[in-house]
Amino acid sequence: MTTLKNDTFLRALMRQPTEYTPTWLMRQAGRYLPEYCATRARAGSFLDLCKSPSLATEVTLQPLARYGLDAAILFSDILTVPDAMGLGLYFAEGEGPKFERPLRDEWEIRDLAAPDPHDKLRYVIDAVSEIRKALDGSVPLIGFSGSPFTLSCYMIEGQGSDTYAKVKKLMYARPDLMHHILDVTTTAVIDYLNAQIEAGAQAVMVFDSWGGMLSQAAYLEFSLPYMARIMAGLTREREGRVVPRIVFTKGGGLWLDQIANCGADAVGLDWAIDIGEARKLAGDRVALQGNMDPFILLTTPEAVSAEARRVLASYGKGSGHVFNLGHGISQFTPPENVAALVETVKAESPQYHR
Amino acid sequence: MTTLKNDTFLRALMRQPTEYTPTWLMRQAGRYLPEYCATRARAGSFLDLCKSPSLATEVTLQPLARYGLDAAILFSDILTVPDAMGLGLYFAEGEGPKFERPLRDEWEIRDLAAPDPHDKLRYVIDAVSEIRKALDGSVPLIGFSGSPFTLSCYMIEGQGSDTYAKVKKLMYARPDLMHHILDVTTTAVIDYLNAQIEAGAQAVMVFDSWGGMLSQAAYLEFSLPYMARIMAGLTREREGRVVPRIVFTKGGGLWLDQIANCGADAVGLDWAIDIGEARKLAGDRVALQGNMDPFILLTTPEAVSAEARRVLASYGKGSGHVFNLGHGISQFTPPENVAALVETVKAESPQYHR
Repeated sequence: MTTLKNDTFLRALMRQPTEYTPTWLMRQAGRYLPEYCATRARAGSFLDLCKSPSLATEVTLQPLARYGLDAAILFSDILTVPDAMGLGLYFAEGEGPKFERPLRDEWEIRDLAAPDPHDKLRYVIDAVSEIRKALDGSVPLIGFSGSPFTLSCYMIEGQGSDTYAKVKKLMYARPDLMHHILDVTTTAVIDYLNAQIEAGAQAVMVFDSWGGMLSQAAYLEFSLPYMARIMAGLTREREGRVVPRIVFTKGGGLWLDQIANCGADAVGLDWAIDIGEARKLAGDRVALQGNMDPFILLTTPEAVSAEARRVLASYGKGSGHVFNLGHGISQFTPPENVAALVETVKAESPQYHR
Repeated sequence: MTTLKNDTFLRALMRQPTEYTPTWLMRQAGRYLPEYCATRARAGSFLDLCKSPSLATEVTLQPLARYGLDAAILFSDILTVPDAMGLGLYFAEGEGPKFERPLRDEWEIRDLAAPDPHDKLRYVIDAVSEIRKALDGSVPLIGFSGSPFTLSCYMIEGQGSDTYAKVKKLMYARPDLMHHILDVTTTAVIDYLNAQIEAGAQAVMVFDSWGGMLSQAAYLEFSLPYMARIMAGLTREREGRVVPRIVFTKGGGLWLDQIANCGADAVGLDWAIDIGEARKLAGDRVALQGNMDPFILLTTPEAVSAEARRVLASYGKGSGHVFNLGHGISQFTPPENVAALVETVKAESPQYHR
């Protein structure tokens, strides 16, 4: 394997000293980039793009060509795992992801099985290998998966929801069935992420996009323990180096103290929590990744720079901060505002690392 | 004025001793009740129902006839104030509320003026008087308004939004204009709530339904200070009794410490925060209202009772808890599950007040 030229991101995740605060952006390869839209148009659908390792490689690299980012993230979707379980993922134009066969009956739940990632998810593993080769040691590659709770939400609802009423109904009325779905999904995610690590992912992230809609009691029963099981089940070292793990529960700021004990090296933060207060709470247990409001990117380069400086100052001196947004970048973001963000962090962060 | 027969709710809001934990439910007069649907069908639209004092009185009283609730809440909508400002509130069937003339240009923002509540909002004030008479001293009546930030969101977006991108763009790029909208709206809310108090509201609540989508820094700049100004501007006593104030920021659990200092007597909690931990944090500053996940009401009477007991136990011994949901009741709630909830709190809560 090629030597990694820029390992700032990996060091920050392990709270080791760095010269500046590394940056990457959730959904950095996305619709705000015209070159992404061009590749996507060639691919056909979003899912066709995900399922083509060469096109997924192409779009993964696009934001790195424009901006001085410190990590690449595999271009894929969080719902690949339930798709490989046979639920039939599709994207209706202008709507979010949907499943053709959501879980409706108890027998369907009992029949669930963790897919072999080298079989039905081969296209993801191939993309990881191909991206890793294409990166040629420039920056590390992040692999990822949805969290068991978030995947289960989609598997039960069949699509996104404002209320997740079906999930909550099942969870409160039949916790045994909910735990069964979570159990199978956890095994699937462990296998999936380990296959990504084996294929070359140098860090992994678990996206718990919907955990934040739970009560604390329900979060501590239905979401966090399964992420902890994933942390315990992941390959720890590869190519002579630790593979850091990041967990991110959107809306989970209230539970940071508990999340910081789940076995992750770093915790992603949305924008609701002040990152300086989060750091005080997390102490030296984990690095923090985040947490600028992505909608600031809809304004002006000046407003973006001011807010980036505020986030850096709030985190303060020392290592353990990976700059990111608190959620995925909006498709309406002017690309020049992303340049202002990345340049501000590069220029302003070294003072916090001296 | 008639003597109030059951003032348990008002005492709990002031953290005075009570014999049991009082209960009311956000959106307790709503579509889950067949009698509400019948009245609504007679009224025509939802807005016709809001604008008819006699029909608003009828639906306000319906849940009290069914359940042993300890408070009534004015039947109205949070968006009456911007409607009275001339923005043209309407409800498209099957969609949320919308405005015909959302704020688009700077001159429209500069032209905003606080409406006289006795003129364009007369129908609300008349409803308060009529409900108060109809209640005949049985339980107290809660008046309410949207928070300045939440009202401003709707005024700028023109309708609900997943991202509130328009609001955030304005707020970050033109904070001066955002503050102007908030300033006028705050004056309007103070006048509106004071008119409700004068007409007979015995407690008031400010609903900050959208403040939770802000960063902490933005919340402390654009939402909380305006609620604090409202608290300072409200009539404190009426009919020889304090009129308690409740503020509720959905998704605001992270900022409870700051919210508890805004001048409110009680803070509403959504279900994300554990109410026992919230109590520790708030100390003796405020009473707490909440916080059961409303989707538990979609399950069974047994599951509902178990969760109600969990919330009561988490709050623990002593006064200062008003039992409620963490958000409005779902229209798909079986009415018998609400009965199970109310009966459980009545039966199980006295042990915490001995």
